[in-house]
Amino acid sequence: MKLNYFDHNATTRVDDVVMEAMLPYFQHEYGNASSRHALGTVARRAIDKAREQVAAAVGVQPVQVIFASGGSEANNLFIRGAADSLQPGHMAISAVEHPCVLKPAQALAQRSVGRWTLQRLAVNQRGQTDLAAAREAMSTKKPVLVSVMLANNETGVIQDVAAIADFARSQEAYVHTDAVQGLGKITVDFAALNVHAMTLSSHKIYGPKGAAALIVDKRLLLKPLIYGGGHENGLRSGTENVPAIVGFGVACELAKARMLDTAQHVARLRDTLEQGLIRMGAEIFGAGAERIPNTTYFALPDVEGDTLVVKLDKMGFAVASGAACSSVNPGQSHVLEAMQVDPLLARCAVRVSLGRSNTQAQIEEFLAATQKIVEALRSMSSLSF
Amino acid sequence: MKLNYFDHNATTRVDDVVMEAMLPYFQHEYGNASSRHALGTVARRAIDKAREQVAAAVGVQPVQVIFASGGSEANNLFIRGAADSLQPGHMAISAVEHPCVLKPAQALAQRSVGRWTLQRLAVNQRGQTDLAAAREAMSTKKPVLVSVMLANNETGVIQDVAAIADFARSQEAYVHTDAVQGLGKITVDFAALNVHAMTLSSHKIYGPKGAAALIVDKRLLLKPLIYGGGHENGLRSGTENVPAIVGFGVACELAKARMLDTAQHVARLRDTLEQGLIRMGAEIFGAGAERIPNTTYFALPDVEGDTLVVKLDKMGFAVASGAACSSVNPGQSHVLEAMQVDPLLARCAVRVSLGRSNTQAQIEEFLAATQKIVEALRSMSSLSF
Repeated sequence: MKLNYFDHNATTRVDDVVMEAMLPYFQHEYGNASSRHALGTVARRAIDKAREQVAAAVGVQPVQVIFASGGSEANNLFIRGAADSLQPGHMAISAVEHPCVLKPAQALAQRSVGRWTLQRLAVNQRGQTDLAAAREAMSTKKPVLVSVMLANNETGVIQDVAAIADFARSQEAYVHTDAVQGLGKITVDFAALNVHAMTLSSHKIYGPKGAAALIVDKRLLLKPLIYGGGHENGLRSGTENVPAIVGFGVACELAKARMLDTAQHVARLRDTLEQGLIRMGAEIFGAGAERIPNTTYFALPDVEGDTLVVKLDKMGFAVASGAACSSVNPGQSHVLEAMQVDPLLARCAVRVSLGRSNTQAQIEEFLAATQKIVEALRSMSSLSF
Repeated sequence: MKLNYFDHNATTRVDDVVMEAMLPYFQHEYGNASSRHALGTVARRAIDKAREQVAAAVGVQPVQVIFASGGSEANNLFIRGAADSLQPGHMAISAVEHPCVLKPAQALAQRSVGRWTLQRLAVNQRGQTDLAAAREAMSTKKPVLVSVMLANNETGVIQDVAAIADFARSQEAYVHTDAVQGLGKITVDFAALNVHAMTLSSHKIYGPKGAAALIVDKRLLLKPLIYGGGHENGLRSGTENVPAIVGFGVACELAKARMLDTAQHVARLRDTLEQGLIRMGAEIFGAGAERIPNTTYFALPDVEGDTLVVKLDKMGFAVASGAACSSVNPGQSHVLEAMQVDPLLARCAVRVSLGRSNTQAQIEEFLAATQKIVEALRSMSSLSF
């Protein structure tokens, strides 16, 4: 059965060009980049090149790139690393952040009772951070750390990071954005976003798993999450994962070069998809907001999301019923909860996230398959009552 | 020029069998293991299998394996993760630990002045932890956390972890061993070592970079270093690096199957090497102690280690002048310092770490090359005075 992969926000297939770039570093140029011999030098130069590629993708200098093993690590490095180098204070974190931003912040607040405090910045029903409410909250209690993601992994809704950062800076806060779902889909410019730190990840942009970066403003003080041999300017110790870093660098270069093309392609497919779903009675979450072009988060009333995902899977369509990263912890989506979506409707949520290789024919087949499943489920449920 | 790679304690070439096992997971079975569709299930099963392979290599149950991105992360996870779940107390850490054990312990002691305290357990001149001194130290000040590595990365000296763990347990401490340099070279049995936690790494055993494990006793309480989606039983969040984990699993299986064979092979080469070096007037560090069979850490008096490494490199021999992981931070080896080696001799230290692919012919060529370099250097220095 041909696979129709519609789960690109969870992970992507490694691009052929990326794979080709990585391959030599497993068995030929396999040196440890800290070694002083020739094989070590080759590895070091490969990392230097990748650092330039990642930096260029978001308009920063290579020295601003701290490589990490994944987006979760990079987000934790910001939260815990910044907190460890500051006097305890208040954190303002958007309510729709990925768990790898929210959870370390919660752990910090729980651990140091009465020292670090945490407030979730509310979003409106379209999933956008409420700017007025955010300003109000940050004026009432001045935050030290602020984190607002660029694009949400579930809804695809784009946040006005620059506006929030602008106000947060006026309150003397350090501002971070998780741009993992933005890179390759919309323009991601570090300076324009006006943040002190930004997270990028490789495996969401047709790069390998195992590489990511925290991009930092040189004025941001950080303590490491992982101490040791002093790699990455002392901020992230551990033997560099050379093949993955090389792949990440190439993936960044491709993401930048192909961005407009990819965005146009998937937006067209997405529009067809959403028109079809709306005809079936679907609600599209975040529909009124600016969104990344590849993501549709929808609910067909009375069709349980998990059931639809399983049935679609059997017909060869890979979609998600929630953020893949938290599928190990089932339960209601905290994103939809923050958007005040009716819990009954939230249970019906399914995410389609498109990618470069998807086609118009796949969308049509998907719509036909969904229609068939929905009709069967509805006839079953009418039989059972 | 043919490369004579003698730096296996820094990193290893990915084995062909490992590479073959990993390859499908980059571009075919590229799913996120948390995804509920078929592609996610394939990834999840691959991780489950790797977990069994890693567990079997050290005689534990799969549930005791926490995958991490590298040995440094796993060591930090033990130190910081255990500390975060305990009342602050005393730490006893061997003086010859890798920086990724020593540094997080130092950071903890520096951060919480007057709460966490740190004592380095002394080694004797052969590089072995002094058992009597360790008992004395742990009786005088009862530690909560103890960490003693199985085999030292620089000298290859094997520590009597079980004896130290036995006494540390009688003092109610939690005991960890960094077994990264032991795996594949000597028998590594979690139960026999009598520890609560143990670190293993993939890229030292012909597996890929980007995978490692902390093996834990079920009674050890840990907090995560990386919070988020709740992967690895909530102890290490982040999308699993499926290809690297798969490779690590296969590498563990190979390491176990080939251990005796490899050990015998490299021990024979090592003996030839050391006889030759001693004939040239070399001192072998840790010579009187039990060592892993692949490592020779030596000094030729008056021949600066860095100089020898560079000259050998030009002749096609890859060796290390110190632990590769800290080559970014040059300076005297803390291991030799702890062994009370004369600083002048310590500056001459060079490490040869052999592997499966090395041959007797390579050793003979190495000895000839070293002889030539030493003669040239000595004639130069006699000219200049």
